[in-house]
Amino acid sequence: MSTNTIRYYEEQQCSVQWRSFLGAFSAEFASKGEPGDLRAFMHQLGRTMAAGFHVDDGSSLQALEACMNKVWSEMNWGWVELVEEADALVVAHHASPLKVAFGEQALEWSPALLEGVYAQWFDGLGMDKSLRLTQRAGVFEDGQLFVFDLKKQSEEPSYFTRR
Amino acid sequence: MSTNTIRYYEEQQCSVQWRSFLGAFSAEFASKGEPGDLRAFMHQLGRTMAAGFHVDDGSSLQALEACMNKVWSEMNWGWVELVEEADALVVAHHASPLKVAFGEQALEWSPALLEGVYAQWFDGLGMDKSLRLTQRAGVFEDGQLFVFDLKKQSEEPSYFTRR
Amino acid sequence: MSTNTIRYYEEQQCSVQWRSFLGAFSAEFASKGEPGDLRAFMHQLGRTMAAGFHVDDGSSLQALEACMNKVWSEMNWGWVELVEEADALVVAHHASPLKVAFGEQALEWSPALLEGVYAQWFDGLGMDKSLRLTQRAGVFEDGQLFVFDLKKQSEEPSYFTRR
Amino acid sequence: MSTNTIRYYEEQQCSVQWRSFLGAFSAEFASKGEPGDLRAFMHQLGRTMAAGFHVDDGSSLQALEACMNKVWSEMNWGWVELVEEADALVVAHHASPLKVAFGEQALEWSPALLEGVYAQWFDGLGMDKSLRLTQRAGVFEDGQLFVFDLKKQSEEPSYFTRR
Repeated sequence: MSTNTIRYYEEQQCSVQWRSFLGAFSAEFASKGEPGDLRAFMHQLGRTMAAGFHVDDGSSLQALEACMNKVWSEMNWGWVELVEEADALVVAHHASPLKVAFGEQALEWSPALLEGVYAQWFDGLGMDKSLRLTQRAGVFEDGQLFVFDLKKQSEEPSYFTRR
Repeated sequence: MSTNTIRYYEEQQCSVQWRSFLGAFSAEFASKGEPGDLRAFMHQLGRTMAAGFHVDDGSSLQALEACMNKVWSEMNWGWVELVEEADALVVAHHASPLKVAFGEQALEWSPALLEGVYAQWFDGLGMDKSLRLTQRAGVFEDGQLFVFDLKKQSEEPSYFTRR
Repeated sequence: MSTNTIRYYEEQQCSVQWRSFLGAFSAEFASKGEPGDLRAFMHQLGRTMAAGFHVDDGSSLQALEACMNKVWSEMNWGWVELVEEADALVVAHHASPLKVAFGEQALEWSPALLEGVYAQWFDGLGMDKSLRLTQRAGVFEDGQLFVFDLKKQSEEPSYFTRR
Repeated sequence: MSTNTIRYYEEQQCSVQWRSFLGAFSAEFASKGEPGDLRAFMHQLGRTMAAGFHVDDGSSLQALEACMNKVWSEMNWGWVELVEEADALVVAHHASPLKVAFGEQALEWSPALLEGVYAQWFDGLGMDKSLRLTQRAGVFEDGQLFVFDLKKQSEEPSYFTRR
């Protein structure tokens, strides 16, 4: 599939109704703070968003993934894969509208919104308090894949420290 | 038409993709400032939004209204009526998605977004510097109509002062 | 609320993506048959549509209504009220996009689509074979309300006979 | 980009409001006729659709392409490229919602809708009567690209003959 087609699909995914507002929000918001502060606010927004959805079936990884994808699908926010690795649960979020909504220059802080959503959902499921969800540094698949690791808090906990 | 039908239409107008985000934004944002500050930020967001659209046909009131409504229609943000009165140009914006997006409790500050958009558009058209656009206090048609007056700056210029 | 606002909401409810196609379909289709044939085809389309949804909780009228409204809400096709009367179960469908999609001139046959959907759902729930769902003649609430009666088949079974 | 992501974008492009109706239409419609008849009806639907849009700037190939893409973009029906070849004007339509709306099994006849739209637009522009627009046989880019040739009518004019 051509790059043009992929770009077309990315563009049209983001609702025309709010695209201008979100672009303006991104510009104004970014001018007001450091990336760390922007991430903190977006993370908090994500936690508030998450509280409005019922993601409560933690009976299996498959059930949890299905439960999350039901939310994402109804919102047209892409989909998630949950993968168990040796020392972490990996949360891979594909095809979100974040890049188009907030712009490429915001990819440093906009995915903290998803980080907040997942963190809140795992908290709600009674996740072990020693675990922490953090975004893996780097931009994958041209900003269409964000990866989060849920694991024991290390000495380098944050998106920025780990870069 | 029944109240239920009107409510149904209002609800479904606001894009599902961003409704949860905008609700969370409204809650977090409102917790951070005074109404006057919230209005100032929304007004600025509106000005930034406005700059992305071409509203430049001021050849007549009808042409200007049509130009603005082309923008609003493509975004599904309702429509505007421009009415000349003795001492003011009245801007009446109908059927915006603001009430559903940001919530009823935000109606005190969310319409400042429209105020900013219109202020920027009138500035761009070379409006007389002695004129100022301000929102008329009060909630009309159950939050589905916002009225702005463009007139000579009086001693009571703001939405809050005039209440 | 003003008539303009109601009209605005009605118009914008119908997806822009398919509106032109549906309008063309309505014009071409209506030119090819008698209202009775058009209703028969739309009824069959409705039955085929219905089969793709899970409406299977007939434990109570409330549960059934909720089950149906979940489908309608996800599709943005308005909502339904089920009301028990002495000799019939009344199905009142509000705020569907039919009038805008197929046009006012099609209101004689387009609601047979809903008739087919409900008929199929009631059949799937194991409805008594002596019952039959038929649309009540007349246009209500300016084409925003369609009423169907589920009752013992009388001698005048159809939408057209009963007019 | 992964196949899953491409499939996700394809799926979500088609409006949820009409997807079930269009799928039912496709099934019922296909059961009623031969592919040639289905193509003829879709071609006619396309011509009727086309008449509702203003595509009238034939001052240059670029202007015409831009004019057409304005229509497609507002409807979220993908985009078109017009390419001049030695003996034909090639019309390449990318990223339409046809495959998802009408199904893969309908790809033999559903693109006749686009054929009808383009044929009508070229007629409206006063195209030489000896020219004819026909779809090039074959499915390209997994049903996301349809190619039409506008050229002197040969002895093998139709989609089916040319196979």
